Amino acid sequence: MKDMLTCDKERMADKIAAFSKFGDAGHGGITRYSLSPEDHQARDEFVKRMKAIGATIETDDMANVYATIPGSVAGLKRIIMASHCDSVKNGGNYDGILGVMTAMEVLETIATNKIQHRHPLTTMIWTNEEGSLYPPAMMSSGVITGKFDKTTMLASKSVLEATKTFGQALEASSYKGDEKNRLNPDDYMAMYELHIEQGPILEDAGKEIGAVTCVLGMFNYRIKFFGQADHAGTTPMNKRHDALFAAAKALCYLHEEIDKLGKPELVYTTGEILCHPNVHTVIPDLIDFSIDVRHEDPKVLEQVLAIVKSLDGKEIEKCKGKVEKAWARDTVYFDKELVEYVKESADELGYSNQYINSGAGHDAQFAAAMLPTTMIFVPSKEGHSHCEPEFTSVEQCTAGASVMLNAVLKTDKK
Amino acid sequence: MKDMLTCDKERMADKIAAFSKFGDAGHGGITRYSLSPEDHQARDEFVKRMKAIGATIETDDMANVYATIPGSVAGLKRIIMASHCDSVKNGGNYDGILGVMTAMEVLETIATNKIQHRHPLTTMIWTNEEGSLYPPAMMSSGVITGKFDKTTMLASKSVLEATKTFGQALEASSYKGDEKNRLNPDDYMAMYELHIEQGPILEDAGKEIGAVTCVLGMFNYRIKFFGQADHAGTTPMNKRHDALFAAAKALCYLHEEIDKLGKPELVYTTGEILCHPNVHTVIPDLIDFSIDVRHEDPKVLEQVLAIVKSLDGKEIEKCKGKVEKAWARDTVYFDKELVEYVKESADELGYSNQYINSGAGHDAQFAAAMLPTTMIFVPSKEGHSHCEPEFTSVEQCTAGASVMLNAVLKTDKK
Repeated sequence: MKDMLTCDKERMADKIAAFSKFGDAGHGGITRYSLSPEDHQARDEFVKRMKAIGATIETDDMANVYATIPGSVAGLKRIIMASHCDSVKNGGNYDGILGVMTAMEVLETIATNKIQHRHPLTTMIWTNEEGSLYPPAMMSSGVITGKFDKTTMLASKSVLEATKTFGQALEASSYKGDEKNRLNPDDYMAMYELHIEQGPILEDAGKEIGAVTCVLGMFNYRIKFFGQADHAGTTPMNKRHDALFAAAKALCYLHEEIDKLGKPELVYTTGEILCHPNVHTVIPDLIDFSIDVRHEDPKVLEQVLAIVKSLDGKEIEKCKGKVEKAWARDTVYFDKELVEYVKESADELGYSNQYINSGAGHDAQFAAAMLPTTMIFVPSKEGHSHCEPEFTSVEQCTAGASVMLNAVLKTDKK
Repeated sequence: MKDMLTCDKERMADKIAAFSKFGDAGHGGITRYSLSPEDHQARDEFVKRMKAIGATIETDDMANVYATIPGSVAGLKRIIMASHCDSVKNGGNYDGILGVMTAMEVLETIATNKIQHRHPLTTMIWTNEEGSLYPPAMMSSGVITGKFDKTTMLASKSVLEATKTFGQALEASSYKGDEKNRLNPDDYMAMYELHIEQGPILEDAGKEIGAVTCVLGMFNYRIKFFGQADHAGTTPMNKRHDALFAAAKALCYLHEEIDKLGKPELVYTTGEILCHPNVHTVIPDLIDFSIDVRHEDPKVLEQVLAIVKSLDGKEIEKCKGKVEKAWARDTVYFDKELVEYVKESADELGYSNQYINSGAGHDAQFAAAMLPTTMIFVPSKEGHSHCEPEFTSVEQCTAGASVMLNAVLKTDKK
């Protein structure tokens, strides 16, 4: 790899240290909601550092921020590297912000070393990817790509204070700009997003880089069981319609049946369960739980869905099941050429790597509907994410930045 | 039953109609928290009607209300009939208040018909039996019998407004009286409490009266499973520590093992389940659920407890179980002589009847530690209680009152 261009580990470490301060919760992680004061501090730091290398700053109507350095050939489309700097509550120092920091690092490397490039190169901050304070997640990429209605999004209420809306936070932000500055396919030719894996696959395989081929298709359903609320002390067992016992049996049944499909890459999760009236002396009359299922192959998702739907109308412990769709998405495949640029760059740099898919959603999956897009994953220690123990070493972060640098330069040659 | 004294159905119907107005929620039931304006309306109605038959009104320091008519022999102890007039949120028109109304009906029958009796006879309203607004349940009987610390009870916070305490509500009440007026074994010889069954046993057996022999012993435990929170989309199934799946398996295991004991009168319930973080895209890292178990025989309770405790430290789906005691009570047996007075009265009146135990807790179980006590059950339609469909016909209510009248008169002969 003697002839390969690489990014700078010291400069990378300095950025990680700097950005970890904005929203520091005092025990190794951050809480940095979108458009909060902490988020504005992070944006200001981004702008300061990007201006220092001569980048031009633009903002759009969703407060997305773009920093651009010109290319050597006039009239060519931009290549963009984008991620987000907001976090979940008590999140870590890498989810989202690492994609912004590595994008900055690529531009800094190119500017500092005066690396020739034909296309303008842009780094970008997406507003409100997590949707932690103002749901939903991936709000701005959803609006810009027409997946979400902007008026509805402006009315999104703060989960902490129901009187506050995303629209108010946007109006109050110094980063609200012009709709004409939005990411668009006429002015941009390709997008890269670097992200921590958020799972244990790369670490377990001992790989430094993941060339992401797709965001997994998924469905999210609600399963309810309707019982009858009666007194815990006075209702004989054989008279009961216990919705929680029915739900427990249904959960075990789902695991048993879905596991029979024998699909090791399939993931499914019940993360939320609501119980009514949820009083220790009352037999529950309603249980409502989620099931989130993800796999690349729509045929596998269909098989699982058939199992889930088999609970609709089914009676368990004299309680009737009801199955309702919450939402679903098809697998989003990334641009094959860009995926190969990532793979080749990693190979040429001598970084161990593999193809991987993304189980989590990212702004890149929406952007992919508009322009050629892909993602680069770096390992997550023990697979942790959305929590304070999130960790990726500075060497791993710099390796990811170097791969993105070289993939961008390959794209630039087109 | 031609020579038997009976209560008056029309007067009973009038009371049910009158008391159902206080806290009427508009769809067949009431919300009447203890010491609320609605509770004060019910108390005022009680006082008005008891004064009309010449009863003397007293109140004690917990705002319990006593209405007494004198007996023919000076210096004898009082016989008391007591229940409560507070309800749960969206409760029915019978739980608690029926015990007060039938006690009133007994005194009204005795006063109106000038029925001879040696002992003073008292009807009583217990304050805050439900503990719905200010926990715990059976607060005043707990204080008077020394089960609960009064200072702690006065500090009990409203579940609706954390700044309000039971003590403040008590100070503001016109029913707060003197500690010397408390129910006590020197001045009282026996206590009866009539209550709806709150279960389906009498109705299913076609019986009109239950002679209650005991309040079931019980224990309430918390069972927790500790897992690891990870992303639903990025964590392979074989890497998961899913606390909810562990809990679902544990619930099925508990049902299977406890049912093997083959005890038809045993009841056990998981009514409450808490899930953390309870987000549909996150594998749960903590599930905490209740188990409430009731049976008359302590040996049976011990067998069940051994099954529950077997989950302590047990690993299910890589999640560790933890079992913690919340509280427990021994079976409280009622006074055999009083139970027989109830049974004999029902037999003599020609009402079908049976012995029954109480799975639910009542003020009578605390009072039983202080003086001879028992309870009388009347049927609950379809076993419903603590809900608006609670129903017992006026004929069934009057039958219960007539049984209590005759049992009281048998006690009076002692």
